[in-house]
Amino acid sequence: MRKISIYDTTLRDGSQTEGISLSLEDKIAIAKRLDNFGVDFIEGGWPYSNPKDTDLFAYFAKHKLKKSKIVPFGSTAHPAKPPSKDKNLISLIKADTEYVTIFGKTWDLHVKEVLRISLSQNINLISKSIEFLKKRKKKVFYDAEHFFDGYKNNPEYALKTVKAAHQAGADLIIFCDTNGGSLPWEVEAISGEVKKRLGLRNYGIHCHNDLEMAAANSLIGVKQGCSQIQGTVNGYGERCGNANLITVIPILAKKMGEKLGCSAQLSDLTHLSYYVSEICNMVHRDNYPFVGKSAFAHKGGIHIDAVIKNPLAYEQIKPELVGNKRRFIVSELAGKSTLVTKAKELEFDLDKKSKKAKEIHQLVQRLEKEGYQFEAAEGSFKLLLQKKLKKVKKFFTLLGFKVMIEKRQDNQLISEATIKLKIDNHLEHTAAEGDGPVNALDKALRKALIGFYPVLSEMHLTDFKVRVLDAKRGTAAKVRVLIQSQDSQEKWTTIGVSENIIEASWQALVDSVEYKLLKSRK
Amino acid sequence: MRKISIYDTTLRDGSQTEGISLSLEDKIAIAKRLDNFGVDFIEGGWPYSNPKDTDLFAYFAKHKLKKSKIVPFGSTAHPAKPPSKDKNLISLIKADTEYVTIFGKTWDLHVKEVLRISLSQNINLISKSIEFLKKRKKKVFYDAEHFFDGYKNNPEYALKTVKAAHQAGADLIIFCDTNGGSLPWEVEAISGEVKKRLGLRNYGIHCHNDLEMAAANSLIGVKQGCSQIQGTVNGYGERCGNANLITVIPILAKKMGEKLGCSAQLSDLTHLSYYVSEICNMVHRDNYPFVGKSAFAHKGGIHIDAVIKNPLAYEQIKPELVGNKRRFIVSELAGKSTLVTKAKELEFDLDKKSKKAKEIHQLVQRLEKEGYQFEAAEGSFKLLLQKKLKKVKKFFTLLGFKVMIEKRQDNQLISEATIKLKIDNHLEHTAAEGDGPVNALDKALRKALIGFYPVLSEMHLTDFKVRVLDAKRGTAAKVRVLIQSQDSQEKWTTIGVSENIIEASWQALVDSVEYKLLKSRK
Repeated sequence: MRKISIYDTTLRDGSQTEGISLSLEDKIAIAKRLDNFGVDFIEGGWPYSNPKDTDLFAYFAKHKLKKSKIVPFGSTAHPAKPPSKDKNLISLIKADTEYVTIFGKTWDLHVKEVLRISLSQNINLISKSIEFLKKRKKKVFYDAEHFFDGYKNNPEYALKTVKAAHQAGADLIIFCDTNGGSLPWEVEAISGEVKKRLGLRNYGIHCHNDLEMAAANSLIGVKQGCSQIQGTVNGYGERCGNANLITVIPILAKKMGEKLGCSAQLSDLTHLSYYVSEICNMVHRDNYPFVGKSAFAHKGGIHIDAVIKNPLAYEQIKPELVGNKRRFIVSELAGKSTLVTKAKELEFDLDKKSKKAKEIHQLVQRLEKEGYQFEAAEGSFKLLLQKKLKKVKKFFTLLGFKVMIEKRQDNQLISEATIKLKIDNHLEHTAAEGDGPVNALDKALRKALIGFYPVLSEMHLTDFKVRVLDAKRGTAAKVRVLIQSQDSQEKWTTIGVSENIIEASWQALVDSVEYKLLKSRK
Repeated sequence: MRKISIYDTTLRDGSQTEGISLSLEDKIAIAKRLDNFGVDFIEGGWPYSNPKDTDLFAYFAKHKLKKSKIVPFGSTAHPAKPPSKDKNLISLIKADTEYVTIFGKTWDLHVKEVLRISLSQNINLISKSIEFLKKRKKKVFYDAEHFFDGYKNNPEYALKTVKAAHQAGADLIIFCDTNGGSLPWEVEAISGEVKKRLGLRNYGIHCHNDLEMAAANSLIGVKQGCSQIQGTVNGYGERCGNANLITVIPILAKKMGEKLGCSAQLSDLTHLSYYVSEICNMVHRDNYPFVGKSAFAHKGGIHIDAVIKNPLAYEQIKPELVGNKRRFIVSELAGKSTLVTKAKELEFDLDKKSKKAKEIHQLVQRLEKEGYQFEAAEGSFKLLLQKKLKKVKKFFTLLGFKVMIEKRQDNQLISEATIKLKIDNHLEHTAAEGDGPVNALDKALRKALIGFYPVLSEMHLTDFKVRVLDAKRGTAAKVRVLIQSQDSQEKWTTIGVSENIIEASWQALVDSVEYKLLKSRK
């Protein structure tokens, strides 16, 4: 059985995402994580265009990865220079790797309007550049940039470019949907046609997500005989992103029965996705297929009821296979049985008929009436159960806080918080300034606690949401604050509700910190 | 040429998204917006299971939509009751609409393990329920729940259920991939086979996104002769969401050349997507196809260079077609003509080539970069134009304010604001307490001004919205405050942006008051 290889370009294409900026250390950490997971190839970067990437290859020349091959990326030679004088190609040789990837132009429009050379000159560039690399014993992946757009515009020319790469000795040709504008049936027809006409045994595919088709197009490639999928973790990438490997991998392994080098690590998928989002400093999307917080979350009463009878009823795969878990969302619509099920899911043993269950159910109902919404704040819900069902020692006692916002005539704005609390018998009274009143309070709270609970340095806040509940009351309206926090293992969300936004934020902040402290205590 | 109809279920399936909770007013606002855009059908909700939805249908029975048909959703009758006694079916009749949608079971596993009735009983339920509705002159959409999973497990039984619906007079049968676990080639093969065997002229498709295939599967349906696509704005929906109509619509219209009822409104697509995300209080994803902030953003130097030479080089469609715009991430460029058009609409005469136009354009660009969004705050935008284009006498000068929030050990909470301002030569220094810091500041400002401007007693605040902009920064994130005010003649919305929620609220409050004072002066 053939093996499909996974080629990750998070470090190169992924780092083009608006808002992502990776340091050398970040890149090394991600590469090591991908190696542990077992992807076949890791595109490390473009050493010629980015000095940081040169250092990355120097690092991995000394510290070999266990399983993955690291690959540098570059382009065909500059039109005005012979390959042997081309700094871009030379940087690929210097990267000291077994494999290299170069891209070349397939679309005549790009040759004429962007490179501004003749069509035959471009063919020549492709041949000469690949020959240069092959002579230096490199295995060469050739990215046929704009392959599908090029073929649609001028099929004969597109074929010629790919043929040139094939004849020059490219080890694999990758069909790229660079602008992400191709539809599945186009990918199917064009790949099939080209594979046949060139007599290729296999090929690779590199798709962008501008039509939300990147994953579908990649898999349709596999149906046609493609043996390599290029993509990124969480689908990061320029514009609308690249094919999301976190989606593609479990489909290949579990739905299509393909052989993958990383199959054995599948249950590590959710953690990989979180880890990379953490290093890229991107919010982990709740609705990510397979690994999102909501991917196996059931809300409607009918669905919850059916999933309890048989999970297959509303789940396309077992969540454990990809390292995720099933969740029942507690909402106002839910009865006491959902509450008990939910408690069980969170590893609390709660008898439906017990006095405790009744008490907690009434408490949750009362809080939801006040505007709390535990379906979006599982962290706070877990804390609530913990406090009601187990003995929890208090981490600290608040003696009071003050927050002061001052705007002066010179437009200067100051936010300051003072906080007084007791930890065991220590009195801690401290203060902090912040970017706003909530930030000042957040800082003051952490400052007061960190000496006693250094584990708090592992967590940070990743999301802060404010929702006005009864907007018609204007500035006197009740607000609901949701705070999402994250450490290297998980995300949790906590809630606060009050007419006073500072008080609501305070509740959510305290829950967030207590959640972390509780799980560290275990 | 056949027309593909767009069936939106944002209000029903979309509202199942974890974290989305829509009030009746929210639902009405979204339905009206969808009607303006011109979708063919709007699934308003499940009146039987949700009293809020009953009110929605009562509202639209009185206030007819211009273009869209509103549709209630329900299920086949309860096994123990005849259709005429089934409250769920009766609620559909009471909704008083031309069309209704019901779902029934296709998958034998669901019939046996969830409904816990016999296979033939289920067939009977489907027939009887549809006949009941048809006798009452309803046009009936039949959602074949778990159609693909059912077919994979027991094709003959799945066929029978759909055949029963067809024979009972269902006007359209919708093939549902309820668990979102189907791949494009499965959808293609199964839809084709069933269509042929039942002799259907057309059918609908309803896909979920658990494999990131919802858009691809919906479009593959269309290639097979499907005439209705069901989905939601921004792909909202339980777990990983539903087919994203915002992606599907432009592909149908522009890539596949299909005829749509909403084709003429395509350039309104980006605004629709933002509007719904705003009401749902969901972050608008930067990488949404077509409408995301990054969808036409170019970061890499090579890409920017090429796009300047020819936008086609790295763009799969013209951004204007969907109401989005091209962005170069290094330097922002936006449209001056939109500004001039908008100014004209607000009755300001602004020459596009004037120095003033340039100046205002630059100011607006700078403010939007900081997070202001004048689209949602026309009041503030009008004030800005007024101040730039006409001489406006200052109503007051702020000398400073202080806001203090104190939480004591006894849990008592106090919010107090002091304010110092000058009106002409009068110095006004006053203070107020409030339900929270913003309310205290609001009260203090009015108290300081009312003696000089009694007209302020005519206005009051009707809405107060807070939106966190760069949520990743946690409590140091920037927030955008929108305040809506009203007097007996009109409503106006004003905006403030700052890392400090008090400052952001202050800006919006001041704009709101100034807006009222300016119009009273005329």
